[in-house]
Amino acid sequence: MKEIKIRASSEYNMYVCKDFESFYSLLENYKIKKVFIITDENVYRIYEKIFQGFKENRLGKKIIKPGEESKNINTIIEIFDGFIKCDVDRRTTILSVGGGVVGDIAGFLASTYMRGIKLIHIPTTLLSQCDSSIGGKNGFNYGGIKNIIGTFYQPAFIFSDVNFLKTLNDREYRNGISEIVKYGFVCDSNLFKYIEENKKGIMERELDKLYHLVHQCGKIKGEIVEKDEFDTGIRHILNFGHTVGHAFESISNFKLSHGEAVSIGMNIESFISEKLGYIDGNTRKRLISILEYFALPIDYKDINTDMIMKFIKKDKKKTSDNIKFALPRSIGNAIITSELSIEKTRSIINEFIGREK
Amino acid sequence: MKEIKIRASSEYNMYVCKDFESFYSLLENYKIKKVFIITDENVYRIYEKIFQGFKENRLGKKIIKPGEESKNINTIIEIFDGFIKCDVDRRTTILSVGGGVVGDIAGFLASTYMRGIKLIHIPTTLLSQCDSSIGGKNGFNYGGIKNIIGTFYQPAFIFSDVNFLKTLNDREYRNGISEIVKYGFVCDSNLFKYIEENKKGIMERELDKLYHLVHQCGKIKGEIVEKDEFDTGIRHILNFGHTVGHAFESISNFKLSHGEAVSIGMNIESFISEKLGYIDGNTRKRLISILEYFALPIDYKDINTDMIMKFIKKDKKKTSDNIKFALPRSIGNAIITSELSIEKTRSIINEFIGREK
Repeated sequence: MKEIKIRASSEYNMYVCKDFESFYSLLENYKIKKVFIITDENVYRIYEKIFQGFKENRLGKKIIKPGEESKNINTIIEIFDGFIKCDVDRRTTILSVGGGVVGDIAGFLASTYMRGIKLIHIPTTLLSQCDSSIGGKNGFNYGGIKNIIGTFYQPAFIFSDVNFLKTLNDREYRNGISEIVKYGFVCDSNLFKYIEENKKGIMERELDKLYHLVHQCGKIKGEIVEKDEFDTGIRHILNFGHTVGHAFESISNFKLSHGEAVSIGMNIESFISEKLGYIDGNTRKRLISILEYFALPIDYKDINTDMIMKFIKKDKKKTSDNIKFALPRSIGNAIITSELSIEKTRSIINEFIGREK
Repeated sequence: MKEIKIRASSEYNMYVCKDFESFYSLLENYKIKKVFIITDENVYRIYEKIFQGFKENRLGKKIIKPGEESKNINTIIEIFDGFIKCDVDRRTTILSVGGGVVGDIAGFLASTYMRGIKLIHIPTTLLSQCDSSIGGKNGFNYGGIKNIIGTFYQPAFIFSDVNFLKTLNDREYRNGISEIVKYGFVCDSNLFKYIEENKKGIMERELDKLYHLVHQCGKIKGEIVEKDEFDTGIRHILNFGHTVGHAFESISNFKLSHGEAVSIGMNIESFISEKLGYIDGNTRKRLISILEYFALPIDYKDINTDMIMKFIKKDKKKTSDNIKFALPRSIGNAIITSELSIEKTRSIINEFIGREK
């Protein structure tokens, strides 16, 4: 088991391991007695045995439907009702067992119930182990806007067992690969090379490869969160692919998964980077080539510039009349810029859509 | 204008003043451009002129019904809808203009919309100027439990103009006196003496008396919040009168105001303190005498011990099988104790109810 210490407004550990048993001793070390579990139907079905292990500590549980559609205010209210019914109080710990959706919901609930009760993330997807469980962001969708309501709230610890990744369906697995490629491309050239050199093993989900990836991403994200917990500066680097990606999530009506949309977003945003002379064509080709190896989409049918611009303009990251982008400058290195006007952005995206493929 | 610096997770100022004009220059100093105003019908009716002053900066406003009944999830959702409709974004500042209810709602909304946008408190009641606007606690009632959902969220600044206090109705004014008496009795003997010596002027709402009280309470609360922002230790001192007081708020179905319930709570909790030998009868008499001078209730008709115990046991402050109390030891000095068992508490309250009056 490896430990990553994350020094945010509260200091906590992320544990990366290859067996679940160590979790029970952590519960003892952290003196955790009563828990309320939030998970989804898929995780519960496959790992019912694990949940038996909590029986004596369990005040209650809530099993939500898998998928982004569950991230709404009705789910939030339903679980608050569950908390009250089960006498959840300040001595209770919320266990979030699942992917990004479960983590986002559980994080928001734990941060707002009684002004904050203890929270443990047990991420079960590649995306949540490498990215979303780390750093305290949570939220749910409202009024058609993704994550419009949420808080920053750090857990007591994160427990990432890479064995969970073996039972992910193929699409969910590739969803996570997309964010890992992002980490390599904008933060860490060694990680990007590791992915290029070990792509077959990664595709086949070899346990030591997964262990390495989750640990490396945890380290990178942990360092960024330490520098900028509340996402007002350097943490924006991690938005590479997301400014455009979020637009595609909305355009597809969430038929595209987050990772798929980010993959398309990375293609277009690296195109912007190339057009501005920040990266050369070869660097961009290495990105596209790895995305294609993992069968991630880099394009989407029947779109036009207006549709993309409409959603980009709505994005939370717009802080002035310009659009904020995280743009790569070389592999492992990127800058945050607010210098692109809406018009300039539109013109480059227009060129992207009209280009020969 | 006086400034009190509050060094919590973010550092901010509380301004205490006798004219509203300085607020507009503060808006400029803080570079605040777009605002969304949350207030209540009473404040809006009396101070409509002030709200005209924001016209060019105003994205939108929401005027809620006054009173604790508004502090529910429907109000929260309605205002989120208003935010989205008015394009509230990260560049917008929420102006909370009102008493504790408005501040609690505005604080929660500002802390959770887009994971936190800027917030300014303009408290207009004695209670909110002296207590509730300071320290970042917010929340709303749900499932019949007071403030069960909320966060800790610090404002950009607090602006307390004591002129607002002149238009408070008598009951609302006395509501605030109750908390000020509490501050004096458990935190600051000089403040308690000041209240005793200036009770007539305070009753008549002399401006310099109000100015002194708001400034002193701001200093006391600010210091406590600096030491214990997240209410895990010394901040519990301020719960004197509240453990029992909250029970009376519930028993009365919120017909008792917060300050009135706390007044009764202080009477009973100082009785507990006397019974445990922490204070003498004379000290307690000084407390009762000042509460009575301001026509605050110290008792409630038709109650019995079981009713009180039922709600005390539900209280958020219960962290074990014992009840947590802040109990005075002398004027200006109190301790936090979890040593009273439910049975011991019941027996003392029983004695209180059965005593000769």
